[in-house]
Amino acid sequence: MQGQLRVYIDNVTPEIESGKYSIAKVVGEKIEVEADIFCDGHDLLRAQIIFRHEDEKKFHTAPMSMMYEDHWRGNFTTDKQGKYYYTIEAWMDHALTWKHSLKRRMEGKEKLNVELLIGAKHLKNIKADADKDDKEEIKKLIDILSDEKHYDKAVKSAMSERVEELIVKYPYKEISTTYKELPLYVDRKKARFSNWYELFPRSTSRELNAHGTFKDVEALVPRLQEMGVDVLYLPPIHPIGTSFRKGKNNSLKARKGEPGVPWGIAGHKEIHPELGTLTDFKSLVKKAGDAGIEIALDYALQCSPDHHYVEEHPEWFTWRPDGTAQYAENPPKKYQDVVPFNFETEDWESLWNELKSIVEFWIEQGVNIFRVDNPHTKSLYFWQWMIAEIKKDYPDTLFLAEAFTKPKLMYHLAKIGFTQSYTYFTWRNSKAEFIEYMEELTQTEVKDYFRPNFWMNTPDILPFHLQNANEAVYITRLFLAATLSSNYGFYGPVYELQSSEALPGREEYLNSEKYEIRNWDWKKDTKLKMLTGIINRARRDNEALQQTNNLQFLNVQNDNLLAYYKESDDGKNKFICVVNLDSTKKQQGFIQTPLEKIGKQEGEIFIAHDLLNDSRWTWSNRWNYVELDPSILPCHLFRIEGD
Amino acid sequence: MQGQLRVYIDNVTPEIESGKYSIAKVVGEKIEVEADIFCDGHDLLRAQIIFRHEDEKKFHTAPMSMMYEDHWRGNFTTDKQGKYYYTIEAWMDHALTWKHSLKRRMEGKEKLNVELLIGAKHLKNIKADADKDDKEEIKKLIDILSDEKHYDKAVKSAMSERVEELIVKYPYKEISTTYKELPLYVDRKKARFSNWYELFPRSTSRELNAHGTFKDVEALVPRLQEMGVDVLYLPPIHPIGTSFRKGKNNSLKARKGEPGVPWGIAGHKEIHPELGTLTDFKSLVKKAGDAGIEIALDYALQCSPDHHYVEEHPEWFTWRPDGTAQYAENPPKKYQDVVPFNFETEDWESLWNELKSIVEFWIEQGVNIFRVDNPHTKSLYFWQWMIAEIKKDYPDTLFLAEAFTKPKLMYHLAKIGFTQSYTYFTWRNSKAEFIEYMEELTQTEVKDYFRPNFWMNTPDILPFHLQNANEAVYITRLFLAATLSSNYGFYGPVYELQSSEALPGREEYLNSEKYEIRNWDWKKDTKLKMLTGIINRARRDNEALQQTNNLQFLNVQNDNLLAYYKESDDGKNKFICVVNLDSTKKQQGFIQTPLEKIGKQEGEIFIAHDLLNDSRWTWSNRWNYVELDPSILPCHLFRIEGD
Repeated sequence: MQGQLRVYIDNVTPEIESGKYSIAKVVGEKIEVEADIFCDGHDLLRAQIIFRHEDEKKFHTAPMSMMYEDHWRGNFTTDKQGKYYYTIEAWMDHALTWKHSLKRRMEGKEKLNVELLIGAKHLKNIKADADKDDKEEIKKLIDILSDEKHYDKAVKSAMSERVEELIVKYPYKEISTTYKELPLYVDRKKARFSNWYELFPRSTSRELNAHGTFKDVEALVPRLQEMGVDVLYLPPIHPIGTSFRKGKNNSLKARKGEPGVPWGIAGHKEIHPELGTLTDFKSLVKKAGDAGIEIALDYALQCSPDHHYVEEHPEWFTWRPDGTAQYAENPPKKYQDVVPFNFETEDWESLWNELKSIVEFWIEQGVNIFRVDNPHTKSLYFWQWMIAEIKKDYPDTLFLAEAFTKPKLMYHLAKIGFTQSYTYFTWRNSKAEFIEYMEELTQTEVKDYFRPNFWMNTPDILPFHLQNANEAVYITRLFLAATLSSNYGFYGPVYELQSSEALPGREEYLNSEKYEIRNWDWKKDTKLKMLTGIINRARRDNEALQQTNNLQFLNVQNDNLLAYYKESDDGKNKFICVVNLDSTKKQQGFIQTPLEKIGKQEGEIFIAHDLLNDSRWTWSNRWNYVELDPSILPCHLFRIEGD
Repeated sequence: MQGQLRVYIDNVTPEIESGKYSIAKVVGEKIEVEADIFCDGHDLLRAQIIFRHEDEKKFHTAPMSMMYEDHWRGNFTTDKQGKYYYTIEAWMDHALTWKHSLKRRMEGKEKLNVELLIGAKHLKNIKADADKDDKEEIKKLIDILSDEKHYDKAVKSAMSERVEELIVKYPYKEISTTYKELPLYVDRKKARFSNWYELFPRSTSRELNAHGTFKDVEALVPRLQEMGVDVLYLPPIHPIGTSFRKGKNNSLKARKGEPGVPWGIAGHKEIHPELGTLTDFKSLVKKAGDAGIEIALDYALQCSPDHHYVEEHPEWFTWRPDGTAQYAENPPKKYQDVVPFNFETEDWESLWNELKSIVEFWIEQGVNIFRVDNPHTKSLYFWQWMIAEIKKDYPDTLFLAEAFTKPKLMYHLAKIGFTQSYTYFTWRNSKAEFIEYMEELTQTEVKDYFRPNFWMNTPDILPFHLQNANEAVYITRLFLAATLSSNYGFYGPVYELQSSEALPGREEYLNSEKYEIRNWDWKKDTKLKMLTGIINRARRDNEALQQTNNLQFLNVQNDNLLAYYKESDDGKNKFICVVNLDSTKKQQGFIQTPLEKIGKQEGEIFIAHDLLNDSRWTWSNRWNYVELDPSILPCHLFRIEGD
């Protein structure tokens, strides 16, 4: 058998590092597969994708077709979560080769007697797999082709389209080549489509200077629901250590009564007493869940020196010759109040298991989403193992990597299993920067394993462009994050209040909540808040806005205007987004509308319905005029609607 | 151990299809290896290439260094033929991390007492592997760093460059990551550097209409030696079948006395009686060998219906329902005088073994080079197996693939083991075409497994640009083939005679030797013949011209002039080639000389020595004027020589 093989399959995409890492998709997502497929000689080839869920024995198939010489493409979708394997099978179709050569031979005026007998043989081969009715039909065809007395009738039958249909329907592939199996991980849809709101529970009290509680957060749920939030992310909710506790604005010594940094964790499976009890937390998870909001917790792998791990498992930490533990660093940042784990410990197995059990503990409390603190400063091999293990038992679990690090490392975290990642969006500003970055994310191999989550700000990052910015900037960044990327998030209260007091010359908040309790005005209503609700509802109701890789930039002859197009996989839901990147001046220009995608001819009327202010524009040309005044509304969110 | 790993190695190049295929190099060739190498955290990394011959247990190493963030490069060379494996090992160097952080800490005015003790620990780790003298020195350093009473002395020692030297010299890599082994096949140098001359032995008689013999070929050896030929390739020398024998100009029926087509083979291990005996053939191999010329035979896997295989092994062929065998086709060409093997036969093992034994038979007669006829129309799996098997026993054997087929298939033949390949050079004409094609061959992955052999013509191909062309065209094509590519060849007698009678409107020779015996004038001397000798000797004497991948195009502000630069691996041998692509008019222009590579500053004098006419030009600028008159000499072959 091996020696009878003729077909090669090579250069398969997607295939991440020779199949070492899974591609990442969600239920129902279209997965495009391409490959070079060829053989010696001139026979016709056929190919199909074959795929299966790891729990199933049964394979599914999807057809492939040749795009250009020796290069093939097909696609499939999955309907279940979990791990899949996919590959390609290809074979020489001698019957089809025979069928196609018949026509050529006819034109060459060859006598076809022998060819008809060969055809009868091919039909015998395909008959075995045929359905009952087709089997009968094939049997008759064989008789006709074998009947040398009625040559003209036999030729006519052999030339019929029906014969080709049957050959294609029942491929005879005694000898076929199958590529190696490649892994695919299918998540629930939230992995690709989510919006995050971050707040510190301790700053949610309505009483001045009081320590906020889970009950206070619960009271905010209706407000967040109104804004369309679907993930509420809380920084660590655990007890905070007192050794080397830091004070206001990252001062090295806390004064008496200062609350410390939530990341100075003194017990990963416990709750900070001032926030409430485990019962209170579960009540919050339930209330939020009922309002369509999932709670995301912070998974931060370091310890306050007061953490019981330090005493119970000194072998998990690095000790210096003077008996002290080295504190954590992420240059230039220093974290004097925490000690990192030593992942090179010989006792790594017990360490890995304990760290995994933290995730399991919170999953049991109803949490399915974890924002992972600085994963790039912890063992990558640990992440690869831990995430795979957790997903075997809890496939709903999602992990967001907070890795503001070098590009290759950021992408690598996605390859080894992280569901989503923070990105460089936070520092992209110009039209050229957006186009370059989005093309990297959506047009290269990255699109198959990396899911960006666009954050406008975080407690660690107050980008320069938000400092002393007007409301148009805040609206623009929100709009860009929410429409360029299907996952986005922001550190909510400060963003909503457009509060931007920074440490001088730094992209960091002054009087940051990381080091102190703040009191926010939770009643303030702004245009920004209203638009957040409108944009989030538009996202919820329109499939075109629920993925990132469907992005296509549009021509606009004005470098202050950025325009892009998105449509749903079924092609029914279509959007044109336009953003004025200049927050101070009105900008105008003509946009090149992708009429072919919209399904209109030049001159045919269609409606561009701006969901932000519910206005309707009647367009009928390829180039359409827009004008955006930042003092009114710096963006358009056009849904393209019928005539 | 596995759990203590920290470093990842990914995206390794060269790596052909996940390491499924070998890269192809020759003895002494520089092999550049690159990879993404990274880890969590901020420790310093180190990496090295490790490689071994398959017959050796011992590994060799070569250092790698970081080119830019997370991307590393190194190179190695091999001194033996055969199969090698290479891979990359990388590790976190904690000692080096400590050393580099010391400086930062000094600048931060930290007290270093604990750091010095940590350093002493690192030095203890590296001591184990140190040579005797170094071991003593390290021991002393440990004492100094551990001596808390002499802090300043300890700091000074710790900060010394010698400590870094020792750390680099004796890497402590208790925990290191090793990438998978990748295959490399190392050939003798001829695989990369050869020039081929093709002739039909039957047309070598000095007597009109007589059938040439091996003795006649032997008589031509001195002439070929004078021209600098190093491979003499003979079309099939086997008995020619008589069934369906073809006549002059591919007519379907030979008239009485017509000699037939040499590819209509009636016995693969036999010699056509009119050429002589096996003894005569071996004498030719010997005589040519003494003159530095290797004989290449044609390996053509098909049979005349008269071949004894057809009767002895009917199971190796495809039989039609009427009892006839299907003749071979390579659309649009038809070969009515031969039948192809059926590689899908259930008896494939006996077929494969017999076909391999043909190669072995001729190797035993002294032949080490095979030009393989239309390999793309025979089972690719067979080639992959056969070539690997032959090379195990006869590593000197080289295979040239005659696959004028689709690009992916042409490249695939190289991946599965063919040493060299015919190319599309034969149809490249304009400057833009040359640049595009050469960049594909030398700047993409192709460079690591595909060795082009540039042919100006073949018995099958008389390209339009040679038809009725002047001598300048013939010289230009020769020059381009011989200097762009380190392997080149031509169908000699017709090329030398600039004979270009074609079938009307076709790129095929009229009265082709494939179908009849021709009488050539072996005494004619031309400028072309003289230049062939000069160019071949220049190639033989200058390493820069002995590889293809060192090509770099130079700017010339005239689209009729093509200029390029080549230098040897050691940088000592440097060439600038200039070609006038216009065969009718004088062309001139300024060439941008790569002064940095030449090692000269603007204004410094150097010599451009044209080896074609032994003229010397004194240059001292970046832009240098050249002028080429096709009626005199359409090219320059400048060797750059000292001042």
